[in-house]
Amino acid sequence: MSVIVQKYGGTSVGDIQRIKQVAAKVVKAVKGSRKVVVVVSAMAGETDKLLGMARQVTDRPDDRELDLLLSSGERVSTALLAMAISACGHPAQSFTGRQVGIETTSSHTRARIRRVTGERVRKALDEGKIAVVAGFQGIDPFDDVTTLGRGGSDTTAVALAAALGAEMCEIYTDVDGVYSADPNIVPGARRHDRISYEEMLELATAGAKVLNNRSVEFAKNHRVPLLVKSTFQEGKGTLVTEADAEMERVVVTGVACDKNHVRFTLTGVADRPGVAATVFSKIAEAEVVVDMIVQNVGAGGCTDISFTVPRTDLARAREQVEKVLSSVGAAGISLDEDVARVSIVGAGMQSHWGVAARMFSALASENINILMISTSEIKISCLIERKYAELAVRVLHDTFLPPAEGVKE
Amino acid sequence: MSVIVQKYGGTSVGDIQRIKQVAAKVVKAVKGSRKVVVVVSAMAGETDKLLGMARQVTDRPDDRELDLLLSSGERVSTALLAMAISACGHPAQSFTGRQVGIETTSSHTRARIRRVTGERVRKALDEGKIAVVAGFQGIDPFDDVTTLGRGGSDTTAVALAAALGAEMCEIYTDVDGVYSADPNIVPGARRHDRISYEEMLELATAGAKVLNNRSVEFAKNHRVPLLVKSTFQEGKGTLVTEADAEMERVVVTGVACDKNHVRFTLTGVADRPGVAATVFSKIAEAEVVVDMIVQNVGAGGCTDISFTVPRTDLARAREQVEKVLSSVGAAGISLDEDVARVSIVGAGMQSHWGVAARMFSALASENINILMISTSEIKISCLIERKYAELAVRVLHDTFLPPAEGVKE
Repeated sequence: MSVIVQKYGGTSVGDIQRIKQVAAKVVKAVKGSRKVVVVVSAMAGETDKLLGMARQVTDRPDDRELDLLLSSGERVSTALLAMAISACGHPAQSFTGRQVGIETTSSHTRARIRRVTGERVRKALDEGKIAVVAGFQGIDPFDDVTTLGRGGSDTTAVALAAALGAEMCEIYTDVDGVYSADPNIVPGARRHDRISYEEMLELATAGAKVLNNRSVEFAKNHRVPLLVKSTFQEGKGTLVTEADAEMERVVVTGVACDKNHVRFTLTGVADRPGVAATVFSKIAEAEVVVDMIVQNVGAGGCTDISFTVPRTDLARAREQVEKVLSSVGAAGISLDEDVARVSIVGAGMQSHWGVAARMFSALASENINILMISTSEIKISCLIERKYAELAVRVLHDTFLPPAEGVKE
Repeated sequence: MSVIVQKYGGTSVGDIQRIKQVAAKVVKAVKGSRKVVVVVSAMAGETDKLLGMARQVTDRPDDRELDLLLSSGERVSTALLAMAISACGHPAQSFTGRQVGIETTSSHTRARIRRVTGERVRKALDEGKIAVVAGFQGIDPFDDVTTLGRGGSDTTAVALAAALGAEMCEIYTDVDGVYSADPNIVPGARRHDRISYEEMLELATAGAKVLNNRSVEFAKNHRVPLLVKSTFQEGKGTLVTEADAEMERVVVTGVACDKNHVRFTLTGVADRPGVAATVFSKIAEAEVVVDMIVQNVGAGGCTDISFTVPRTDLARAREQVEKVLSSVGAAGISLDEDVARVSIVGAGMQSHWGVAARMFSALASENINILMISTSEIKISCLIERKYAELAVRVLHDTFLPPAEGVKE
């Protein structure tokens, strides 16, 4: 049995008319012995609407209740899409996260998938049905509904593709592939035909919104080929797959930007071993992912520690840090919300010298001050003032991906 | 452990402000060792909105998918109410129909409760929490979501009250009790302090909207006292309970009206044994409840059969009837949608003569023609032209419940 998993995002099922269009598209994908599973997000705006209601009720809604609330959005779109596919004349059946067997951890609003059984989906496919699956949600060991965090529907799709041994996971969205930068910021940005998991992962983490980084990681670990395409526009899209020798190793594949992090600085921290461990262990307890970390060279027995966390975890992180303030001898916390992280990503970086220097010079040429720096094998990120974010992306794209060269087509 | 179950309808949780008011009310109900379970409907208008979306997708949405769709409404209100109660400082936990263990038949959109385990609710109560339960929904033996039909949240509340051995099931709604007629139609209608299960059951079946007849039947069978009260107005409400000797048996307790039935007439049906059985067995296969049935005296080997079914089952009933048309030798089907059923209900009817005659005379005095008649021990119903519905209710209330006498206060 050959299976493909298709995932449609919120704008793709944003209204009834679009749901009908998606239904027709899904039915067309069934060919010969090929079976189709569709994973669907909540209708565009629905999750934000529900979140807004929760915030009207209380400043700090309980995470377990939030999950029950938010998971309802996907149930609506899933039921409607299953109806629409049936109305096209092809049998279809809906499944919730629980019915599909998406077993997760109990970290509400940010649960991780532990196992996917997929039993009922397999049965439906065997019966000649199209399986329509609610994305973004699962069930924890206590039989409570969990959600996988923003972009979680991508993760559902990839995890299901892996569990079913699907030949492909197609991610339908409102853009027609993965670009070298956000075309809204850089009009000359170019679409990739193909990109490696590693580069896609770094780009996603760096802020490219087209794919959620957890889903790319899952795809990479389970070798599920991902095809990113536009829902309402024909095109080849971008294939995210294994890097191979034939892929030319361009220095920089893409430039990305992220405004969803904030910077904390602990000032006057005692400059002795174990201090950083204390701070970051405490933050980890709250399941907050710290992104960039910089510790200054100590002076007079004191030092500063700066780090960034996702904006959504601000309250949680601050609460944790405050618990250890006195024990690490810190003088205070300061918080900077007006920051952005710009990153360049490329597998070719590994074998090219001076990439970082070129990046810093490019930023300096526009008088953009660098607040923090972090690097990985194939990525360099700089934290800068938020107001320069778009300018920085454009100058970096011009530097590393000038119109005539660079991106493979 | 003393437990009360409170149920709040859609208008009671119609917006965030009201949800907060309900939360405050629920917290107040916890006193000493008394535990509180709250069953909640979808926010007012939500179920209709979802149904409207389904109808935009297809004329005949699949029932299983409808159930997934509709059940999402109660999940939203349940999560929000649990958050609101927690925000009032009292621990609360939400439960879906499945988590409560509301096990139902597989008759989607009209499932019947088979069993209620209530295990997790008991545990939450033991832990000092208020349990907030999504009404209207359950789970069938195939692990699929089911809904209990309109008014199903009342049934959830009563079933849960029975399973938990609750001392009382309080139904909070937008009216302050059970009236002798709809006060919107009969301004002089009076509230009952107390009414028997049997009378309430007949009134509910006859169209009194304040309680769903299945929930009353459940309460009667499990001897759960029901208290019907207004959510946003203080008052004694109406207690629905066992009839006892002290209750004065008034002839007529209430007048009700129902516009949700349509009349089918099969003309020229063969006048031989088994014909009615064939027709109504076929209809029963589709789980349509037939209300009134009249078969004319045969003439020339032929007869007519008329019957009423709920408007929502019109398409389903017609389909079934068409399957047997030729085998019962019917000349045709005619359909009358412009009908209403007016009923008078009262335990005292059993011991009073001439009640039916008085009813028919009252209708005749306003020139209202009677199309069909049906009677039970404590109810008489007449099908009339729809346009006379309100007039008929008023004239019957004037006849049987004139301002000076009748209803117990």
